[in-house]
Amino acid sequence: MIIEVKDVQEGYVKSEKHNHVTTIEFFHPQGNSLPGKMLADLAHEIVYAGNDKTVNVIILRSAGTGAFCGGASFDELAAITTEAQGKQFFSGFANVINAMRKCPKLIIARIHGKCVGGGVGLAAAADYAIAVEGAEVKLSELSVGIGPFVVGPAVERKIGLSAFSQLSIDATHWRNGDWARRKGLFAELHPTLESMEESIERLSNTLAHSSVEAIVELKKVFWKGTEHWDQLLTERAAISGKLVVSEQSKHALKKILDARAKAKAV
Amino acid sequence: MIIEVKDVQEGYVKSEKHNHVTTIEFFHPQGNSLPGKMLADLAHEIVYAGNDKTVNVIILRSAGTGAFCGGASFDELAAITTEAQGKQFFSGFANVINAMRKCPKLIIARIHGKCVGGGVGLAAAADYAIAVEGAEVKLSELSVGIGPFVVGPAVERKIGLSAFSQLSIDATHWRNGDWARRKGLFAELHPTLESMEESIERLSNTLAHSSVEAIVELKKVFWKGTEHWDQLLTERAAISGKLVVSEQSKHALKKILDARAKAKAV
Amino acid sequence: MIIEVKDVQEGYVKSEKHNHVTTIEFFHPQGNSLPGKMLADLAHEIVYAGNDKTVNVIILRSAGTGAFCGGASFDELAAITTEAQGKQFFSGFANVINAMRKCPKLIIARIHGKCVGGGVGLAAAADYAIAVEGAEVKLSELSVGIGPFVVGPAVERKIGLSAFSQLSIDATHWRNGDWARRKGLFAELHPTLESMEESIERLSNTLAHSSVEAIVELKKVFWKGTEHWDQLLTERAAISGKLVVSEQSKHALKKILDARAKAKAV
Repeated sequence: MIIEVKDVQEGYVKSEKHNHVTTIEFFHPQGNSLPGKMLADLAHEIVYAGNDKTVNVIILRSAGTGAFCGGASFDELAAITTEAQGKQFFSGFANVINAMRKCPKLIIARIHGKCVGGGVGLAAAADYAIAVEGAEVKLSELSVGIGPFVVGPAVERKIGLSAFSQLSIDATHWRNGDWARRKGLFAELHPTLESMEESIERLSNTLAHSSVEAIVELKKVFWKGTEHWDQLLTERAAISGKLVVSEQSKHALKKILDARAKAKAV
Repeated sequence: MIIEVKDVQEGYVKSEKHNHVTTIEFFHPQGNSLPGKMLADLAHEIVYAGNDKTVNVIILRSAGTGAFCGGASFDELAAITTEAQGKQFFSGFANVINAMRKCPKLIIARIHGKCVGGGVGLAAAADYAIAVEGAEVKLSELSVGIGPFVVGPAVERKIGLSAFSQLSIDATHWRNGDWARRKGLFAELHPTLESMEESIERLSNTLAHSSVEAIVELKKVFWKGTEHWDQLLTERAAISGKLVVSEQSKHALKKILDARAKAKAV
Repeated sequence: MIIEVKDVQEGYVKSEKHNHVTTIEFFHPQGNSLPGKMLADLAHEIVYAGNDKTVNVIILRSAGTGAFCGGASFDELAAITTEAQGKQFFSGFANVINAMRKCPKLIIARIHGKCVGGGVGLAAAADYAIAVEGAEVKLSELSVGIGPFVVGPAVERKIGLSAFSQLSIDATHWRNGDWARRKGLFAELHPTLESMEESIERLSNTLAHSSVEAIVELKKVFWKGTEHWDQLLTERAAISGKLVVSEQSKHALKKILDARAKAKAV
């Protein structure tokens, strides 16, 4: 993977294949938050790896030592001025989740740090998430006047209605990695990065040599009953798109960006 | 909230609004168990607060330092002589759960003590239950010849089939507050009353100032797929209504009331 | 229960009725794994006890001090040469699970040791599983080129999608009894055999004297929404049947049998 200066400034999504395993890595300087362009790239890379007959398993990871994924890009959220733009932006997350859902390969998520909003959605939509201590989770949407509508179905499917409600309602509260493991968001929680890497290496290697036909059938079984999500997540994107241009949401987003600008200036 | 002597003897349901938060409180001298009249009042107050545009969040609580809710009133259960009466009584619980389900506000339950039968249903039908140590739970229905049929859908939706089955089958066994928290019935379990009150205060205050539109959409998402419950819970009330007039149930209820009368006489 | 020498060599399924409780016991010398003949016998005994009006509760147990159930018989799996034979073999598990599902009595599983593959399915399809420390679980299907397709619906229904995915994907990894209890596969996990036996005795005795009508209704409620499983599990048996005759599966099964033969020879 070659990373250029431009990538470090604007973020990137890159894929690398090695021994039947494709690793998809994303990075964004604002805490691995995701602008529309990167969401489109992520969906594209997942579809591409899904179609590659020499690939049996996908590892989804992000770069750096900070957050795994900060969710939606606040800069882009704040720039949205119409419901249609809002719907389009949130459809970016819908497309990534639908790509993960329809991908005939098993997807392992490598969760090296915090997950917020859409980042929780990525962890939930993976078939098997392996995390390390410190990987806290939060669905902060309600605190900026919106809600976890697009990622909701993926999160609820994985951790159940109760845990999904808890995250959605108590939107300012971080739940720690052990909570996420107990609720089933993370399949494993490791004490160290090394231990997490070893486990990912072991499992991805085992799956790379497992029966391709069996994995295709397993994937279908896991996602049975979500056939309507292309439409459902689009409807959800419209709800978030409408809310994000409300006065309350505009106000909350402005406060966050102002605070960030002030912090930078100091 | 003004409470009269009559209320203390016969039980009451009262509402109070303060800063966009409506608190609904119920009380009954028999361990906060619920006769038909109070069930009707509870449903009414929930519908009323749901229609109040100045309310954003509802706190459901009971009075006293004993049980949060003892479930169905044993006196009324024992007085039922026909299936039709039975169905009507259990429809009272169905109406409360359906009112909570359709209410467009978020409902926080304040669980200060034990929950039995219908009381577990109230905790489950709330969107977010905050409890304190000592809040044990039990679905004792089978031990009196009936079953948790009306509250079943609400309980299973919140804690899953396995935990719901455990409670239903092992009907004489109390599960402690930590069990209820781990299974998702309680979102939070606090070591002290003070800590529970602080958390309710903090969360209700935050929600009172959150986006009304976002909360309405969240509530819809949480209860998606329960649109048939008006009918389902009525059918369930008919099942309980039929069982409660069986010889086995009559016998079990008589034993409980006799034991209570004897304890009072001593 | 009279057990003959032939039974010890070829395995057996036997039933015994005592005080409204039918105990169904199975045994097979290869770690209580299940050949087609025993699966048919198991289904038959469950249906028989379900139709017995003097029975209120069924205890499902296996003999010995080793595994509770090793899943499908490897000897039979290895002998399958056509998809049709494969589908027929796996339909044996489908029939047992469907018999448990449709049985109008509550089924308590006594899990005294490890559960593998189909053995996890039996524990999941019971209404209430009581286990002892050491009862580890594994869905090893993917490691022999197949998948937990027939038992999948029963396992997912009981422990949720996340835990089911974890077991299915990480197919070589044992999860301990505490994991199984936390995920809801086991209702209880006891430190000693004595404590497990006491609990089974207590609960089965209580249920034997509970309302038959209430239990019939409870059982219906627990299994609501599975009415299509006769067809679903047959479709799943066809998937496993197709995979088990693949080259990859044949190769994996041969390796296991060779290792077993070698171990025996030493």
